[in-house]
Amino acid sequence: MKNLALLVLICLLTTHGAAHAKTMADVLAATTPGDWRTLDPERVVYLELETGRVTIELAPGFAPRHTANVRALVKQGYFDRQAVNRVQDNFVVQWSGASGKALTGGAKRGLPPEFTRPAKGLEFTVLPDPDTYAPQTGFVEGFPAARDPATGAAWLAHCYGMVGAGRDNALDSGSGTELYVVIGHAPRQLDRNITLLGRVVSGMELLAALPRGPAPMGFHEKSELQTPIVRMRLASDVPAAERTHLELLRTDTAAFSELIEARRNRKDEWYKVEAGRIDVCNVPLPVRAAANAGSSP
Amino acid sequence: MKNLALLVLICLLTTHGAAHAKTMADVLAATTPGDWRTLDPERVVYLELETGRVTIELAPGFAPRHTANVRALVKQGYFDRQAVNRVQDNFVVQWSGASGKALTGGAKRGLPPEFTRPAKGLEFTVLPDPDTYAPQTGFVEGFPAARDPATGAAWLAHCYGMVGAGRDNALDSGSGTELYVVIGHAPRQLDRNITLLGRVVSGMELLAALPRGPAPMGFHEKSELQTPIVRMRLASDVPAAERTHLELLRTDTAAFSELIEARRNRKDEWYKVEAGRIDVCNVPLPVRAAANAGSSP
Repeated sequence: MKNLALLVLICLLTTHGAAHAKTMADVLAATTPGDWRTLDPERVVYLELETGRVTIELAPGFAPRHTANVRALVKQGYFDRQAVNRVQDNFVVQWSGASGKALTGGAKRGLPPEFTRPAKGLEFTVLPDPDTYAPQTGFVEGFPAARDPATGAAWLAHCYGMVGAGRDNALDSGSGTELYVVIGHAPRQLDRNITLLGRVVSGMELLAALPRGPAPMGFHEKSELQTPIVRMRLASDVPAAERTHLELLRTDTAAFSELIEARRNRKDEWYKVEAGRIDVCNVPLPVRAAANAGSSP
Repeated sequence: MKNLALLVLICLLTTHGAAHAKTMADVLAATTPGDWRTLDPERVVYLELETGRVTIELAPGFAPRHTANVRALVKQGYFDRQAVNRVQDNFVVQWSGASGKALTGGAKRGLPPEFTRPAKGLEFTVLPDPDTYAPQTGFVEGFPAARDPATGAAWLAHCYGMVGAGRDNALDSGSGTELYVVIGHAPRQLDRNITLLGRVVSGMELLAALPRGPAPMGFHEKSELQTPIVRMRLASDVPAAERTHLELLRTDTAAFSELIEARRNRKDEWYKVEAGRIDVCNVPLPVRAAANAGSSP
């Protein structure tokens, strides 16, 4: 009887050990189709560069007015034949539309800020670890986010690849006519100070490797040093065969929670010490080519 | 009398407000020559690319054996005419020396790890804010660092621009024959798992903008996609007139503490909400051209 108890105990420990020994690759290999989602082409904009396509998923849940404005601007071709004119090392790349162009389709040059929104009603996958900048961090509909139980506010977090609407000092001076993407260590001091409206889900390497502009702000004054934008388009305005068909791991699944655990405690043979913790901006958000895609990404 | 008290109160509040309203520019403008330090050429290595020079300050205080080994490798020309062959987006760039070459000057291909060291004896400028990965973070001799009062250990933090010695699974398989530099969001899970040995103090933009290699690891297999290394040299082996003469803000000064406060609470007119906190990897480590430099950086 004693031996049986010991055997059960060993069994439990072994199983427990195995359950915690998963790497991210193990977690991804065990996912089912339901763990993944496809992109809604109405919520996706393509930034077409000469070097390739940057795919941006919009976040209307956090920035309904700004994402609607960006959609209207993109639809009228506001960013076509413009240029990425700012590349500040360890900070952001940035581009603007044609400032002299009349806006159509209800688009505006300034909007009330959407820096935060009520946390209520959001399905929030909470990270268990302390964060320097926010009482809680986690994920909402595939985006890194934060919230403050004391105020009831939630907001998107300035992680690598996040896309925002540049503004001047006036809080309502942004609208998406100027866009930026984070290309360095997460500048989380910007959280709640500017409207984030989406995230780059593919093509980050095209933006992150652009030649840096001069310090301190990284603006390329000479047009020949700027990176031409061929055009921006809504995915829904692109023929299905020409879209980038991606699947993203849903962040409201047990699989994603397992992935977080696998990254909090790295079991790869290489690691000597497991951090036992993770920063919201270090959690990978897996993206893969859609299984039945009409074209490859 | 009552009015006088009120006046004094207003005065105090105003002064208090002014004292806290410093921006980083204000803090830097008020520094004195003693707040800055020059680089010790014996502790500096230059990575010479065709596009320019990357200046790396070594950290013998944390990695005495590895920095000595890198010095020996550099002195024998071990990295000359090699190439940066790994550029992983949002992670690291990496290069190795000539693997077939015999080592001289006592250089070794493997060394005992220098992942941590005793915190005792280090002048540690502590940050007051919570960190996801470590009980305490701060700065030691110009380097971002962490420590654990419970174990008495201190270690360098994997912030943007930090330089480390690549290793295989064996803990003693690194020595500096393979070097990497962080080019993305701080991969702090690497802390205490690998030996950091220095920091890029100028020229980061030359490494950060390199074309990314293919996922998942970013290795450029084709040599034409790799970035040639002209040579690596110890600054002390370079004629004084050809050195990059820099001054770095000392991190053990009142000026640096003021800079931290200015960045924890951004007073620039642009900000609506002050974070009131800062992550160790978001604290700028100011570098400027030396006032009486023989050559410009």
